[in-house]
Amino acid sequence: MNTRTEVNELGEFGLIDRLTKNIEFQNASSVLGVGDDGAVIDHFGKQTVVSTDMLLEGVHFDLMYTPLKHLGYKAVVVNLSDIYAMNATPTQITLSIAVSNKFSVEALDEFYEGVYAACDKYGVDLVGGDTCTSKTGFTISITAIGEVAPDQFVLRSSARKGDLICVSGFLGGAFLGLTLLEREKHIFLDSPGVQPDLENEEYIVGRLLKPEARPDIIQFFAENDIKPTAMMDVSDGLSSDLLHIATKSNLGCVVYEDKIPIHEDAKQAAFKFGLDPTAAALSGGEDYELLFTLPQSDYDKLVLNEQISVIGYMTEPEEGCRIITKGGNQFNITAQGWNAFKEQ
Amino acid sequence: MNTRTEVNELGEFGLIDRLTKNIEFQNASSVLGVGDDGAVIDHFGKQTVVSTDMLLEGVHFDLMYTPLKHLGYKAVVVNLSDIYAMNATPTQITLSIAVSNKFSVEALDEFYEGVYAACDKYGVDLVGGDTCTSKTGFTISITAIGEVAPDQFVLRSSARKGDLICVSGFLGGAFLGLTLLEREKHIFLDSPGVQPDLENEEYIVGRLLKPEARPDIIQFFAENDIKPTAMMDVSDGLSSDLLHIATKSNLGCVVYEDKIPIHEDAKQAAFKFGLDPTAAALSGGEDYELLFTLPQSDYDKLVLNEQISVIGYMTEPEEGCRIITKGGNQFNITAQGWNAFKEQ
Repeated sequence: MNTRTEVNELGEFGLIDRLTKNIEFQNASSVLGVGDDGAVIDHFGKQTVVSTDMLLEGVHFDLMYTPLKHLGYKAVVVNLSDIYAMNATPTQITLSIAVSNKFSVEALDEFYEGVYAACDKYGVDLVGGDTCTSKTGFTISITAIGEVAPDQFVLRSSARKGDLICVSGFLGGAFLGLTLLEREKHIFLDSPGVQPDLENEEYIVGRLLKPEARPDIIQFFAENDIKPTAMMDVSDGLSSDLLHIATKSNLGCVVYEDKIPIHEDAKQAAFKFGLDPTAAALSGGEDYELLFTLPQSDYDKLVLNEQISVIGYMTEPEEGCRIITKGGNQFNITAQGWNAFKEQ
Repeated sequence: MNTRTEVNELGEFGLIDRLTKNIEFQNASSVLGVGDDGAVIDHFGKQTVVSTDMLLEGVHFDLMYTPLKHLGYKAVVVNLSDIYAMNATPTQITLSIAVSNKFSVEALDEFYEGVYAACDKYGVDLVGGDTCTSKTGFTISITAIGEVAPDQFVLRSSARKGDLICVSGFLGGAFLGLTLLEREKHIFLDSPGVQPDLENEEYIVGRLLKPEARPDIIQFFAENDIKPTAMMDVSDGLSSDLLHIATKSNLGCVVYEDKIPIHEDAKQAAFKFGLDPTAAALSGGEDYELLFTLPQSDYDKLVLNEQISVIGYMTEPEEGCRIITKGGNQFNITAQGWNAFKEQ
């Protein structure tokens, strides 16, 4: 009898585990494979990091409020972010796109303008790709390649008990930007004459439409002789990504709500929308900040960099993953984030 | 005033040229970029070749007659073929897929079975990827990475006047397989009770559904100290691909119809379908054989390998690209292939 398992029963990570669990490397140069932000390939002593991402119209982006130039920029940045999250420096990308005939050449020019702007800013070269026709929509696939000094790459799975949990920049802004643009989109669809109200929301809209990766943090590590024990980029929300590091490292963690860095403009936007800014940070995603763990002995070095916040520490696995709220209450962190654990 | 140019006005190569014409490399390690089968990246003396391809359901494959296991196998092989076409050896791939919920996990297992079968056969490692949801259909994006000894990579643009034009294996089979399966599909759609008539057509169906790349040819080159002057794989049909080498090398060429290698089973299938087997070879595509040029002084080495056919030679650009038929007539080769030039 044939069995039919729906993909959503397994979830993305369950599916990847199932599909990749039997891989055995055949090449000595394959140092690290599926399961982290990037793969690691040994090239005669030095190491190459490779990461790939696919973005689909209607799933990952909405062209109704995403200018094509921003889309090109963001598609590159989110891939570079994965390379930085391996403690590596991106050097090349390949870009494949599939487009339906609703897109003109001028539209593609705009998209590529954004691609090249990101390549320029981050010093990477577009070295190849594929361009093909789709029946519907716009699909983007980018592979980023980077360099890392031998064995300086950083996994998600190697955090240690007692390590400090750190994050760069601010969290939650992109989710609030998405909330705003989705709201304005629905208002527009209901009443096409109404102009979108984006006043004073440049910060959150910018965080969604034109995110930046964090080469400055990687450089700071190199200059200050810091090697994180574990690292990944915050793409799915702090809850989900932190659980990922904890689970893969076989540890628990404690995070302090009042230490989670949230930009003043994001707080104001959350207030305006009636949302909890902490929830936006925990569950929102798409911030492309770096989440990493460090030995406590590195604490003194961190004060040199105001872009880095220490938000908690890793614990024994038995203690689970917890957040301590501003009011002093404790909740378990779940992959669904704040909303889910608020109901406990 | 806004201009709107349709993508099909430029064609794939015109579009790629337009979108990539201003690229300037920022990394010394970027040796070769867009415009060949793969890009070349320098890694501390040795070189890495990278190639990427996107395949879309309904555009590149039809799941009505493509078993998912075969699809997985073929998706890998066509990417490896690009690496071999650079005179390199593939070592790793990344694989991204987007699938709609019409595909079960078991269906994806089948697809990955094919992926792993190809990885095993060709000795490459799947090191990363991305798995996401699509609204419709199945999209595959693969990036293949390979190694090549320093400066042993072979471009499309470096053929020289007088060089022999060579091709591996047989051409035209995949197109005849496609013709057969499309015919049977339409018969089935018209009369769902009718079973497909695929008897004695294993060869052509196999050429379409389970193509193989040609590592043996690359190995033969290495063992016999041969470095082709130009090379690419036959994915768009001999006409189109040969014109590509000629144009990029700023040369003309002459090909002899009676030298084009066509398998006996393909000839019989063509006869049965009322098609010209030479037309299938010239315009068909998807053969994934290697098309390359060699100095005439290497001719003696070629007789050692019965998998290689010499089909013509490169000429001055003024002479254009011509085929000399079995009957002794001459026609210009066009990118549309045989059908187009028959009408001249």
